[in-house]
Amino acid sequence: MTRILGIDPGLHITGWGIIDFDGFRLKYIAHGTIVSKPSDEIADRLSYIFKNLSNVIEEHSPNEVGIEQVFVNSNPASSLKLGMARGVAVCVPSIMGLKVHEYTPNKIKKTVVGSGHATKDQVSIMVQKLLNCGTVKLDAADALAIAICHAHHRSMLKYAAA
Amino acid sequence: MTRILGIDPGLHITGWGIIDFDGFRLKYIAHGTIVSKPSDEIADRLSYIFKNLSNVIEEHSPNEVGIEQVFVNSNPASSLKLGMARGVAVCVPSIMGLKVHEYTPNKIKKTVVGSGHATKDQVSIMVQKLLNCGTVKLDAADALAIAICHAHHRSMLKYAAA
Repeated sequence: MTRILGIDPGLHITGWGIIDFDGFRLKYIAHGTIVSKPSDEIADRLSYIFKNLSNVIEEHSPNEVGIEQVFVNSNPASSLKLGMARGVAVCVPSIMGLKVHEYTPNKIKKTVVGSGHATKDQVSIMVQKLLNCGTVKLDAADALAIAICHAHHRSMLKYAAA
Repeated sequence: MTRILGIDPGLHITGWGIIDFDGFRLKYIAHGTIVSKPSDEIADRLSYIFKNLSNVIEEHSPNEVGIEQVFVNSNPASSLKLGMARGVAVCVPSIMGLKVHEYTPNKIKKTVVGSGHATKDQVSIMVQKLLNCGTVKLDAADALAIAICHAHHRSMLKYAAA
């Protein structure tokens, strides 16, 4: 059994989702969002993300982590801010000894919905269907989609290595 | 006496410098660089920066932190990478309970050299003169310049508040 944490990083909202995978079946475990206040200073927002993501990992003890490769905005200032949140989100599992696997938004959508151009709603519906769980907020649905994407690709890698 | 840590963040090289400031005199304490391997995965590079910067803070126990506002590159992909390193560099002192003060490269150069358009060499020479210390590597000289800049502005703020 492998416990997978999916992270959808953002300075305002960081979504997270946890699933168990036994090589065949996916099982929903938990999900949530870490919301930092835009009125707070950037250092406080980043340390808020750091602490909450650390708590999620401590509470649920995932074995592997998947993270979305942040969309590169055409605005360099926005990219810098996104990068800061992403740097923290990648760093937390890594300093806790977990390997972080990165997936592009297209790969995640293609794996979960079957199309790289799926809408957020389509991703959310498929996630709820695949995990047989209740309604999931959009940001956390993306995070669960990343976890599903990693489960899929890690089992393919396993077959390739066999 | 206030101990100030200056940080010049970068994914490849993160410079750091520490000075003591009694309200009038600056005293050099230490400096160094944290160099991450470009061949390593980004998660490993970020956790390397995280761990080494944590060690610097634990070893030298600064009271306040100054950090350079990273230059926003015209290339969004480069800005994202810079942002990731910067996010970690801002996060480390913040989760350790230290307030982080941000300064633009222009303000730092203007404070230390007298001109916002000073070269890296000019900054390095002035830093060595002001701190009466030996030769300092360029990246660490920038970090010491940030610490000097914060010492200057914090004492001005103190007078303004008096």
